[in-house]
Amino acid sequence: MQIHTPDWVKHAVFYQIFPDRFSRSQQLKQKLLSAVAFEDWASTPTLYGYKGGDLWGVIERLDYLTELGITAIYFTPIFQSASNHRYHTHDYYKVDPLLGGNEAFAALLEAAHSRHIKVVLDGVFNHASRGFFFFHDILENGRLSPWLDWFKIDAWPLSPYNVEQPANYACWDNNRALPQFNHDNPVVREYIMEVAEYWIRAGIDGWRLDVPECVTAEGFWQEFRERVKAINPEAYIVGEIWTDASQWLDGTQFDGVMNYLFAAPTIAFAAGDRVQMEYVQDRSYKPYPALFAVEYAATIERLLSLYDWQLQLTQLNLLASHDTARLMTIAGGDRESVEIATLLLLTFPGAPSIYYGDEVGLPGGIDPDSRQGFPLETQWDRKLLAYHRELIALRHRYRALRTGSYKSLHASGQSYVFERRLDDETVLVAVNAGTEPARAVLDAPPGTPASVVFGPGTASCDGPQLQLELPPRSGTILAEPL
Amino acid sequence: MQIHTPDWVKHAVFYQIFPDRFSRSQQLKQKLLSAVAFEDWASTPTLYGYKGGDLWGVIERLDYLTELGITAIYFTPIFQSASNHRYHTHDYYKVDPLLGGNEAFAALLEAAHSRHIKVVLDGVFNHASRGFFFFHDILENGRLSPWLDWFKIDAWPLSPYNVEQPANYACWDNNRALPQFNHDNPVVREYIMEVAEYWIRAGIDGWRLDVPECVTAEGFWQEFRERVKAINPEAYIVGEIWTDASQWLDGTQFDGVMNYLFAAPTIAFAAGDRVQMEYVQDRSYKPYPALFAVEYAATIERLLSLYDWQLQLTQLNLLASHDTARLMTIAGGDRESVEIATLLLLTFPGAPSIYYGDEVGLPGGIDPDSRQGFPLETQWDRKLLAYHRELIALRHRYRALRTGSYKSLHASGQSYVFERRLDDETVLVAVNAGTEPARAVLDAPPGTPASVVFGPGTASCDGPQLQLELPPRSGTILAEPL
Repeated sequence: MQIHTPDWVKHAVFYQIFPDRFSRSQQLKQKLLSAVAFEDWASTPTLYGYKGGDLWGVIERLDYLTELGITAIYFTPIFQSASNHRYHTHDYYKVDPLLGGNEAFAALLEAAHSRHIKVVLDGVFNHASRGFFFFHDILENGRLSPWLDWFKIDAWPLSPYNVEQPANYACWDNNRALPQFNHDNPVVREYIMEVAEYWIRAGIDGWRLDVPECVTAEGFWQEFRERVKAINPEAYIVGEIWTDASQWLDGTQFDGVMNYLFAAPTIAFAAGDRVQMEYVQDRSYKPYPALFAVEYAATIERLLSLYDWQLQLTQLNLLASHDTARLMTIAGGDRESVEIATLLLLTFPGAPSIYYGDEVGLPGGIDPDSRQGFPLETQWDRKLLAYHRELIALRHRYRALRTGSYKSLHASGQSYVFERRLDDETVLVAVNAGTEPARAVLDAPPGTPASVVFGPGTASCDGPQLQLELPPRSGTILAEPL
Repeated sequence: MQIHTPDWVKHAVFYQIFPDRFSRSQQLKQKLLSAVAFEDWASTPTLYGYKGGDLWGVIERLDYLTELGITAIYFTPIFQSASNHRYHTHDYYKVDPLLGGNEAFAALLEAAHSRHIKVVLDGVFNHASRGFFFFHDILENGRLSPWLDWFKIDAWPLSPYNVEQPANYACWDNNRALPQFNHDNPVVREYIMEVAEYWIRAGIDGWRLDVPECVTAEGFWQEFRERVKAINPEAYIVGEIWTDASQWLDGTQFDGVMNYLFAAPTIAFAAGDRVQMEYVQDRSYKPYPALFAVEYAATIERLLSLYDWQLQLTQLNLLASHDTARLMTIAGGDRESVEIATLLLLTFPGAPSIYYGDEVGLPGGIDPDSRQGFPLETQWDRKLLAYHRELIALRHRYRALRTGSYKSLHASGQSYVFERRLDDETVLVAVNAGTEPARAVLDAPPGTPASVVFGPGTASCDGPQLQLELPPRSGTILAEPL
């Protein structure tokens, strides 16, 4: 089977937005939002509090994203939900009123598209909230509910709130706030498919799927893909899978996954033993122990062998998300770890995704701390922002960085060099994660670039060989200047 | 102040539909509704069960309503709600999925309007359901909810379902399923006003307001009227007020109320001591003790003196509703009580409203029994249906019956005669509620009609007097044949 994945994703740079925390609109657009009391924007986030970011506010920041080089946004959930992260869906057809509702989303979609920015939404289809209408009806009407078969009831009575009694229904992660759909009910399946179709028809460019491995109904994700792609063949479907995703990356389900299999070794290589264990222990990915270049190269090669190349090019690569601590904090505030990892992210096959605020050095431990309000301009790490901008621009400039082949050329100690090549365009990426200067000597067949287009390293040709001088804790990129 | 009320209401004959029980569509229009298990249509209704009536089904019955002479429908609530009566609003912007959703309602509205049938919806704005998003958010996030001030919290924690703990929030009728809005919050007020405007803009012809006396915020209903009428000056606003409604019928709030002040004496006069006390005791209206004609005349005259005439013409007159037992049952199955009361209803100033099924003799005690499935054709009381059709046609034929003045002419024993007069059109209505034949002799100035156009009575002129022979338990109407 010829696997087809959306071309635009291969060329995209994503920005992941946690809507409550990215941008609060300056102008009041809706009377409904006047006089709403929010937590202080700059205070430490709490589990239950809202800071009041909204989609009108995102529109106000689209210029910022454009300047950064962003071409796609992945929004964590925006549908009506009584939780600041909005993974507790109350209504799949409504954008949350705090975010500005469907009206604000329509405006955002138009504004983003007019800037050639794609928009991918988060679909939480394994479970709903206990306030979700069809579950709520069961709470209200018990056995007489017409929607009884939409969820998985074990016994009566149900106890949605009183934790002293068993919930008596299947719920995600044992959390009674999140009753799990009965995906074996064809009507439930149809309901979810129609939600997916509705928003694709409304113009979104793809779905990020929350905990899709929990939905095990036969053929579910295959049908999901078919129905979504029937409306928009170029829609992006990306699953939240933290492990080997071969089961879903067979060309009939997802176009990619959130690539924590990239994040973990990249952090372990770039930050090494700087990784603060308290932020990564007992999580679903393992950015430890520290990796040397040879181990990193092997891990990356193994990762690149897992899936078809067309799927590799549409992975959603990342270093952090709302589900992890931020790399700046994981690395104990070591900016160079962030820089090296970011360089690896932005030169890797697949779409890089920047978690909002990472580009300006926003710190954050495990959630809710990783979901802080986007900082005021006075608190930005401008050097880090410039670093991101420059690398993103470079990725946009060199097609090889996006769709070129990937080949390890050199791995020694903490130095690692690889090549991205497309037709006659070759880009070399060289990283020295160590604290001492390093030298790498490579074979340099004709076409090997010798010009440094990014970073502090230097290169000199020595007959058929290229000699790279790599200053400590840095990355260097060589290419033919364009 | 010149009081303006919607002209169409003065000429309307309403039909009250309880959507879960009126008509289930024959054709499956939405996959979502396949495989939904309903209670048997013909079985005794339960408090929590659904029978699956829907709006597609109502469309299929519009011809029936047209033949009956109906020109307006009052729907008890149709918005998304986890209760078969749907007074527990879960979403004010969504028509319940069981009813076919917004899609079915839009189709219904178009189909009804094309038959010149108006559509009035039930607005439940005093309270919402405990699953309503803004209340649900308080359940989920407690003091940190941004919507905290939308409801009236007395103490923490809240206990929405566990009846062993106090609910700790204000709710309607002490029912924790129904948290009461804080109408003093200007944002709540705005929210409700926007809901009202939204559906008026969508094309509905009016609002019936549930328990509006519970909403005591200053100027609330005045603003409601202003905003609704700004969009459609002919929209009908009718409140559920069971008592003297002078406070709301001042021309700045409602156009009318559900006229239980008409229902009660009319039943007490027509059914008399046949009234089964178990169905009327401890209710909000008093269709007892039995009334003689003199008492009935006095009560009706008092009622007609309560409000401005323009408001009298837009009252919603009724004999039964989802909140009462049906008259057929109240009267112990005595069909003549139903006929006499129906004749009084259909000749009274203000818009008559037939509670679905009453026209075919559907019985029913206090709810949920008064909310039975509309009977199969084989079970219709066809004579009663013909009686309704004929009287409704008569009302449409004689303008005086709709907007003419009302004047008692004769009250003696159980015989009662009154006149409706408009310009040179006069209609006499004569009722003998007694079990013996009765005679009424009236002054007959020029223009007094002497032709019987309905009923078993006879009339003869005797000089300046008109002598009416009124068979027992019947009503007779005299008019110039048109």
